Amino acid sequence: MKIIHTADWHLGKLIHGIYMTEQQEAVLEQFIELVAEEKPDVVIIAGDLYDRSVPPVEAVQLLEKVLFRINVELRTPVLAISGNHDSAERLAFGSSWYRHSGFYLNGKLSDCFEPVRINGVHFYLVPYAEPGVVREVFQDSSIHSHHDAMSRVTWEIEKTMDANATNVLVGHAFVTGGKTTDSERILSVGGSGSVDSDCFSPFTYTALGHLHSPDAIKHETIRYSGSLLKYSFSEVKQRKSISIIEIDASGQLTMNEKSLIPPQDMREISGYIDELLDPTFYTSQKLDDFLKVTLFDEGALIDPINKLRAIYPNILHLERKIEAIDLKKRQALRSIQSERKTELDLFSEFYKEMTTSEFTEQKQKLMEEVIDSVRKEVLLV
Amino acid sequence: MKIIHTADWHLGKLIHGIYMTEQQEAVLEQFIELVAEEKPDVVIIAGDLYDRSVPPVEAVQLLEKVLFRINVELRTPVLAISGNHDSAERLAFGSSWYRHSGFYLNGKLSDCFEPVRINGVHFYLVPYAEPGVVREVFQDSSIHSHHDAMSRVTWEIEKTMDANATNVLVGHAFVTGGKTTDSERILSVGGSGSVDSDCFSPFTYTALGHLHSPDAIKHETIRYSGSLLKYSFSEVKQRKSISIIEIDASGQLTMNEKSLIPPQDMREISGYIDELLDPTFYTSQKLDDFLKVTLFDEGALIDPINKLRAIYPNILHLERKIEAIDLKKRQALRSIQSERKTELDLFSEFYKEMTTSEFTEQKQKLMEEVIDSVRKEVLLV
Repeated sequence: MKIIHTADWHLGKLIHGIYMTEQQEAVLEQFIELVAEEKPDVVIIAGDLYDRSVPPVEAVQLLEKVLFRINVELRTPVLAISGNHDSAERLAFGSSWYRHSGFYLNGKLSDCFEPVRINGVHFYLVPYAEPGVVREVFQDSSIHSHHDAMSRVTWEIEKTMDANATNVLVGHAFVTGGKTTDSERILSVGGSGSVDSDCFSPFTYTALGHLHSPDAIKHETIRYSGSLLKYSFSEVKQRKSISIIEIDASGQLTMNEKSLIPPQDMREISGYIDELLDPTFYTSQKLDDFLKVTLFDEGALIDPINKLRAIYPNILHLERKIEAIDLKKRQALRSIQSERKTELDLFSEFYKEMTTSEFTEQKQKLMEEVIDSVRKEVLLV
Repeated sequence: MKIIHTADWHLGKLIHGIYMTEQQEAVLEQFIELVAEEKPDVVIIAGDLYDRSVPPVEAVQLLEKVLFRINVELRTPVLAISGNHDSAERLAFGSSWYRHSGFYLNGKLSDCFEPVRINGVHFYLVPYAEPGVVREVFQDSSIHSHHDAMSRVTWEIEKTMDANATNVLVGHAFVTGGKTTDSERILSVGGSGSVDSDCFSPFTYTALGHLHSPDAIKHETIRYSGSLLKYSFSEVKQRKSISIIEIDASGQLTMNEKSLIPPQDMREISGYIDELLDPTFYTSQKLDDFLKVTLFDEGALIDPINKLRAIYPNILHLERKIEAIDLKKRQALRSIQSERKTELDLFSEFYKEMTTSEFTEQKQKLMEEVIDSVRKEVLLV
């Protein structure tokens, strides 16, 4: 049994205002080639196929194209589940029809207890589910955390599964101790949202999605494939790869990885603006990479973003290195601001995060008016 | 060849703030029974399966359930196209897989030239397409109107089709002379958007969607099935039905209809409020129907909507009969209002159309502020 395990494609992802669709398409072309070369028994996609419940049309078209080529043209069975970013219902529309060609796309918790059997191996497809949903399905009021929920699901599977078979679980969860980044949406506000790895002990292999690094956990039988691409600057140092798992007749696992190389990398550079604009520096750089630039200069700079973009067209984020003392001053200032200003502060931070243009006084004034009118509306309704 | 022809389901439709999903589900249950009894060779759904490009999850689930029961459980081939309300790309995701079970869902113009063959009959599935899209596909700059576009499409089909076969076209268009209502979205702003019936002369039968009445046109070989339900008060007098078409070996057509009865009708009542609240009147009424109520009373009434709703819970729209002289006064007043007030006027009309509560001075003041701040924002950006 040869499995290609991937997850967290996040099709339709927008990073700092730029759609990653072209990058995703390029990498998925390599993925299709890899499937054609490796000829696996099955391809697993462990959730977060899309980045959001209603992805852009281009993402929908890309997913259909890729799955059609792998499943129909290359005649490779595909096992996929919905993740916390997907809308299970929207993603899984039509899944009853897909089974004809060995494409199993599960968004329903109730459908995870009957395995998909491929070449003698039993695959359990457990879609991402909120603890509340699991509590409802089992009418079990003791289920509160993600761990409670996953324990109950795997316990139910264990009750009916053939312990002599090779059993593989496909899931989308945060395993306790896993390394997170900025781009995974937190599963549980006010709690860790994590699931102990013990939940998965009945399974020969557990193919997970959610954490974006293939090194997120170290475990002999549980693995995150990692995401398709780097999806935030907190992932710049991560390898991005596809896992290739072989399971022999005795249930022994061999794990390998293959890298996919996007046309443009995501990375960080830093220095004084004059250094970064100096040909002796930048001629050694791949200029069209997606960059976070940190400038060391102090004092005013005239239009640094446009000067830098003339050389590095895909700067996604520019920041100035703030001295520790400056930061302290700001924090002190913030703490004395009235409650009234909090929304504006939050928006201003959001604006700076999402754009590279300045949050001018004029913009601030406009935002104040908008907040004001929303406030009045809330009072009226 | 026995065809069941339906169209314009508009799943996810919201009328005056109320989702029609329950009504749609009840009527589609009857539809499934009808298919089970009639055992047609094929079911045609001529576009506008959904009411909008991103329908609510309940509508997605309902569509999947209905199609699964008809296509997979009842083993009936289904031919469907996207209409002007559908997102062709979102709706048609997965259509390559559906073909295995004889479910042909076409959202791509390029796929309409190759017929689907069922029991010797050739079906051409022409999805709704803007003239600009057709112009692009054929690189033909002479295509401007919907008529130009449909003429070109049917001409292309005619070039390759087998004239000796029985050929059926499935389309979503506004045929010249067709009777419209308030609930079909206008296809062409500043033009009629209509297509002459001559376009369809090569076909033994043309199964259309878009207009909501089965009586929208009178033609021997072209037919609108009409919508699943009444979708606006301009449709209250329309029959709602499913068309059953039989085509014999010589190409002769027999057309029949079957009615589907929703749990609640949509209709209008009018009178003085005291009459409508009088048990001698209302005991003869089906009280939970969706109603538009017109009151003849003059002068102030205290909370008429809530008094009426205590008897008729599903009033969607309440209006007072305005005397002709009143209307004239208002129009005169409107014509002297400054351009500045136009947006507010439009919103006020929209508000009255969509809700049954009053557009108070306080609400008007809030709206003025919002318009103001949007105006400033436009100037800033």
